[in-house]
Amino acid sequence: MENRKGNLMSVRTDLKVLDATIRDGGLCNNFAFSDEFVRSLYEANIACGVDYMEFGYKASKKLFNVNEFGKWKFCDEDAIRSIVGENDSPMKIAVMADVGRCDFKTDFLPKEQSVIDMVRVACYIHQIPSALEMIEYLHELGYETTCNIMAISQATESQIESALEMLEQSHVDVIYLVDSYGSFYPENAANLARKYVEVGDRCGKKIGFHAHNNQTLAFANTIETMSYGVSFLDATANGMGRGAGNCAMELLLGFLKNPKYSLFALLTFIEKYMLPLKKEGVVWGFDIQYMITGQLNRHPREAIQFTNEGRTDYCEFYTDISDS
Amino acid sequence: MENRKGNLMSVRTDLKVLDATIRDGGLCNNFAFSDEFVRSLYEANIACGVDYMEFGYKASKKLFNVNEFGKWKFCDEDAIRSIVGENDSPMKIAVMADVGRCDFKTDFLPKEQSVIDMVRVACYIHQIPSALEMIEYLHELGYETTCNIMAISQATESQIESALEMLEQSHVDVIYLVDSYGSFYPENAANLARKYVEVGDRCGKKIGFHAHNNQTLAFANTIETMSYGVSFLDATANGMGRGAGNCAMELLLGFLKNPKYSLFALLTFIEKYMLPLKKEGVVWGFDIQYMITGQLNRHPREAIQFTNEGRTDYCEFYTDISDS
Repeated sequence: MENRKGNLMSVRTDLKVLDATIRDGGLCNNFAFSDEFVRSLYEANIACGVDYMEFGYKASKKLFNVNEFGKWKFCDEDAIRSIVGENDSPMKIAVMADVGRCDFKTDFLPKEQSVIDMVRVACYIHQIPSALEMIEYLHELGYETTCNIMAISQATESQIESALEMLEQSHVDVIYLVDSYGSFYPENAANLARKYVEVGDRCGKKIGFHAHNNQTLAFANTIETMSYGVSFLDATANGMGRGAGNCAMELLLGFLKNPKYSLFALLTFIEKYMLPLKKEGVVWGFDIQYMITGQLNRHPREAIQFTNEGRTDYCEFYTDISDS
Repeated sequence: MENRKGNLMSVRTDLKVLDATIRDGGLCNNFAFSDEFVRSLYEANIACGVDYMEFGYKASKKLFNVNEFGKWKFCDEDAIRSIVGENDSPMKIAVMADVGRCDFKTDFLPKEQSVIDMVRVACYIHQIPSALEMIEYLHELGYETTCNIMAISQATESQIESALEMLEQSHVDVIYLVDSYGSFYPENAANLARKYVEVGDRCGKKIGFHAHNNQTLAFANTIETMSYGVSFLDATANGMGRGAGNCAMELLLGFLKNPKYSLFALLTFIEKYMLPLKKEGVVWGFDIQYMITGQLNRHPREAIQFTNEGRTDYCEFYTDISDS
């Protein structure tokens, strides 16, 4: 296809695969993963050739009660080190920090004192100036940074253009296209990806994609945007993530042709750790209610509530939220 | 995008949606659907604007024991009429007949005596001559016909070209691209779809697509091939179908922009009939073992057996079938 980079047989050496299981999956279980789970995932990711592993959020302890969440909502340096030591591996460590919900000026060490390699700054499009402040600060500390502009399916073309122009002038390393509501079809996702990649190519920044599976398109959208030059690809074990979940790592690793990626350790991890998590009652993944919010390009919060209430009256759900 | 027909906002009036729930879904429960189930699906499909409903197979009663299968494996005229009467609706009735597994010369009435509108002839690519014999015979009887060439992901380009040339010379109405193994990525599916559509445009035939969800790409591949001119789209309620299942009708109807299509009756049908079916233990849908056979471009039979045995040792499954 026109303007596609690489083809279905070849290796794209510019690709970076990022495992976001603990971070986005943590939204399903309040980050209550055992150390054994996180350590086994860390080891599986290394064995599979994953390039980055996101350990969770750096959330503000002033805004959030540490007793109400697992430690991966806060990602203290010691917590990460208790899993990875000095991280003597080729895999890099990432954490996410939300604009307005973290204390970035006090909670980040200078890079040379930290085992964290990359900070992903998540924001809504109207928060770009605040994101830029964080990005420049964290860049100064020595971290790789990304800007993950969420809910982009509700932004206008001109907002997106302005945001990209502002980021172009910054020190951010990666700009992420984020389909928070799982409302993109591959054609939308590809069109936006090409816009982002054009900016990225111009200013030497990489572009990433973070999918949600509301319409069972997380994997399709990921490989579609990749084919137009997106190079940072988010995925999670078993697709674990808020609501309908994310692009499943097993689908992505099975697709990629670079022999550095392997599926086996992940398959064993899924059997040993993800299936028990589901059995315990942690819920994520495609379901009709998430499809509906995706089709309507809405936040999944009502669908999550519908799920938690064990409801199956899909038709009433549809008419209710279409009304509001 | 280049050569795409229509866009994400517009209506494609050439589209026909075909519900294959009873036929492909019947492979999950030996066609043991209650009359109430089939009648409710028939009514829901009409309410939703579905264009064709496939009731099952016309299988040979000499080859298959009628006591071992539900009646929708055989689709006697009386069985269909007990549901649809004279089918006083805009929706057409389809059945499938497999090359070599039906008695087409004795089991089909002349069209004017039958409530069936369309016969879908399923074959492997080496069976095209036999398929053509059936197609011409059924066309003479007065039926619309399709040729569904299965397992096309294992055919070579030159085989596909020969098959399309042979079909071009026939009276077949619709040629179906069938991803039996769920191994296509949207880019493959689109490339093949364009080849089929080119032939169809040349000889005035329509092109259809039948997806499987082994890699969670059934819906993505369906809308991708559609965007390049495929106009007959197969889907099933809740994606019910052999192994990983098919493109979910609810995803497709929610995507299509033509106001003739509606989702509501299907949502109610799913709640009332599909969820109980799953609760009874009928199994279909995406799972790791189907992903693996899809990635390896193989028949799902080993994955179906793995599922039936309740196994979850994915890694062993992978190494076992990669060896064979």
